[in-house]
Amino acid sequence: MKYNIALIHGDGIGPEVVNEAVHVLDTVAKKFGHEFCYTPLLAGGCAIDQKGECLPQETIDACKKADAVLLGAVGGWKWDTLPGDKRPERALLGLRKELGLFANIRPALLFDALAEACPLKAEIVEGGLDLVVVRELTGGIYFGERGTKETSMGPAAYDVEQYAEEEVRRIAVTAFDMAMKRNKKVTSVDKANVLESSRLWRRVVTETAKNYPEVTLEHLYIDNAAMQLVRNPKQFDVIVTGNIFGDILSDEASMITGSIGMLPSASLAAGNFGMYEPVHGSAPDIAGQDKANPMATILSAAMMLRYTFGLSKEADAIENAVKAVLAKGYRTPDIYTEGMTLVGTKEAGSLVCAEI
Amino acid sequence: MKYNIALIHGDGIGPEVVNEAVHVLDTVAKKFGHEFCYTPLLAGGCAIDQKGECLPQETIDACKKADAVLLGAVGGWKWDTLPGDKRPERALLGLRKELGLFANIRPALLFDALAEACPLKAEIVEGGLDLVVVRELTGGIYFGERGTKETSMGPAAYDVEQYAEEEVRRIAVTAFDMAMKRNKKVTSVDKANVLESSRLWRRVVTETAKNYPEVTLEHLYIDNAAMQLVRNPKQFDVIVTGNIFGDILSDEASMITGSIGMLPSASLAAGNFGMYEPVHGSAPDIAGQDKANPMATILSAAMMLRYTFGLSKEADAIENAVKAVLAKGYRTPDIYTEGMTLVGTKEAGSLVCAEI
Ligand SMILES: CC(C)[C@H](C(=O)O)[C@@H](O)C(=O)O
Ligand SMILES: CC(C)[C@H](C(=O)O)[C@@H](O)C(=O)O
Repeated sequence: MKYNIALIHGDGIGPEVVNEAVHVLDTVAKKFGHEFCYTPLLAGGCAIDQKGECLPQETIDACKKADAVLLGAVGGWKWDTLPGDKRPERALLGLRKELGLFANIRPALLFDALAEACPLKAEIVEGGLDLVVVRELTGGIYFGERGTKETSMGPAAYDVEQYAEEEVRRIAVTAFDMAMKRNKKVTSVDKANVLESSRLWRRVVTETAKNYPEVTLEHLYIDNAAMQLVRNPKQFDVIVTGNIFGDILSDEASMITGSIGMLPSASLAAGNFGMYEPVHGSAPDIAGQDKANPMATILSAAMMLRYTFGLSKEADAIENAVKAVLAKGYRTPDIYTEGMTLVGTKEAGSLVCAEI
Repeated sequence: MKYNIALIHGDGIGPEVVNEAVHVLDTVAKKFGHEFCYTPLLAGGCAIDQKGECLPQETIDACKKADAVLLGAVGGWKWDTLPGDKRPERALLGLRKELGLFANIRPALLFDALAEACPLKAEIVEGGLDLVVVRELTGGIYFGERGTKETSMGPAAYDVEQYAEEEVRRIAVTAFDMAMKRNKKVTSVDKANVLESSRLWRRVVTETAKNYPEVTLEHLYIDNAAMQLVRNPKQFDVIVTGNIFGDILSDEASMITGSIGMLPSASLAAGNFGMYEPVHGSAPDIAGQDKANPMATILSAAMMLRYTFGLSKEADAIENAVKAVLAKGYRTPDIYTEGMTLVGTKEAGSLVCAEI
């Protein structure tokens, strides 16, 4: 079968890591008899430089025509002096909204071979760590009304956190569906003791749970969740939460694995469409030096095969290949420890291909 | 001199831990020749039971007349079935607003004797951990407009995050003043790449910094801050942030010390007035069993002496006494490890008194 993939290489190390993911996808295509067609597109800082805007309309249009999007990373110092709303990162918000990517899926996984890198004590993560943060991605305070106004206390600025029942329901369904394929536990995170939108959130998630009698549902306040992730992250299976809380918790959860250079993510729309990208940023300091870890992007490509194309055998092949490369002791600089074999971006990609 | 202290024992273990703090305060009074007068007041679950509301007006009035408030903890299972806006914890929000407690100060300190309890690897916190989270406490999404409405997506609920320049300026001043007495570094946390209120926040904090040329100011996005607290908490001295981000980060920072039963907090108004309370909750499961750790409340009393009464010698005496008790191996159950001497709430309090 033929699959159309929009490629957004982006900035910094983005192009390098996307190239390795493409290399791996091509290997999968050959081995399993598929055809992947790529459309390279501009977004982020490079789009600002070449087109004067971080998310050109033609990029949006081409993404909509593709079956899935694979993105490297956007942003960098070069554009850091631009006003907040003109930065390359705005491209991400635009893509999420335009493509209807309402569900962000971020697995936080401790790779056996990299368990040492975990900042938490060994006894806390003993036996591994395997949780998924499901973050609502097109609502909440990210997309509510905002502005400035005069108040009795003088000039002020505001942002509206808002959730409609339907928005909560569809992300809850995503989370419960995911839990059914995993350990059947959902932790919904909100601040229902303070926020009206959280009370709606909690009510709708609780209603949705009725359709999943096998799944255990638990509610945590965001402050408590931020603590529990440090104290006992193994208690979690699927965490579901709103856009801003999800931004915070998914990053905290990634950091807890100690290997952020290894973590993929998926942002899904209704149907099978999705955008896939590594959790890490554009790391301009090491861009173009063959030092970046391509594994997160390679694993993002695996998620693409699994979620958008339904090719789980192929996704397994990639994930197992990555594990095999780690088990053999190959490490890019970000995860290097004494006694291991140091490799660059390209070699890391080739090693994965060789294992497939 | 004579000082008037409003005592809100609250629920669960609240009364026990407040009693020990009073015991310690009385010891300080005798030794240093002060007079502390106490007015016991109702708030929280016990106020709901006895007065039908979690924060009776007479409690507010009496707090306003006092020089400072010492609070144990509020809340418990018993009231957990009440609707979100009727819970005992609402008393805290009411007290903050009514008493103008705009600055929440939460030190996250690793006690040498308890370093083992830290969930982070030893090398990450080597040499100790000593940061303070300064959280804005009477603004932001906690006190903005909220409600429900019909939208194009159906029924929805919303909450408004809002900050006026003046609100940001006064909390920034608190943070910079604190940094001047510490290691002269302020990290301001916001989400300026998305939120208008964060852009105002960042601008005002940056302006305020000009009056503190000796202090290094750094800005972090909230998602990054949540990661950095796990990755390298020693990079922080004073963290200043808004109400909701502060709720999350201060709890995360507390948990990172591994000894939440030891951590005090202060909520300050303009002038010297303040409310002091332990970071931990009401722990109804161990209430009335002489098992609670009174140290956090005792250390909150020390903060009261330091910040509201300006009695720093006396505050030092309490803090040193607490350290001495730990150094001698006395532990309440929450921080007990093999080889130490297990003590109850009362004995822990008496041991501190004996050291003063
Ligand atoms: C760049 C930024 C707008 C973005 C977000 O906050 O969503 C990022 O932190 C992320 O999580 O993908
Ligand atoms: C009980 C709750 C309303 C409160 C808050 O969110 O401020 C608590 O979490 C705190 O941090 O003191």
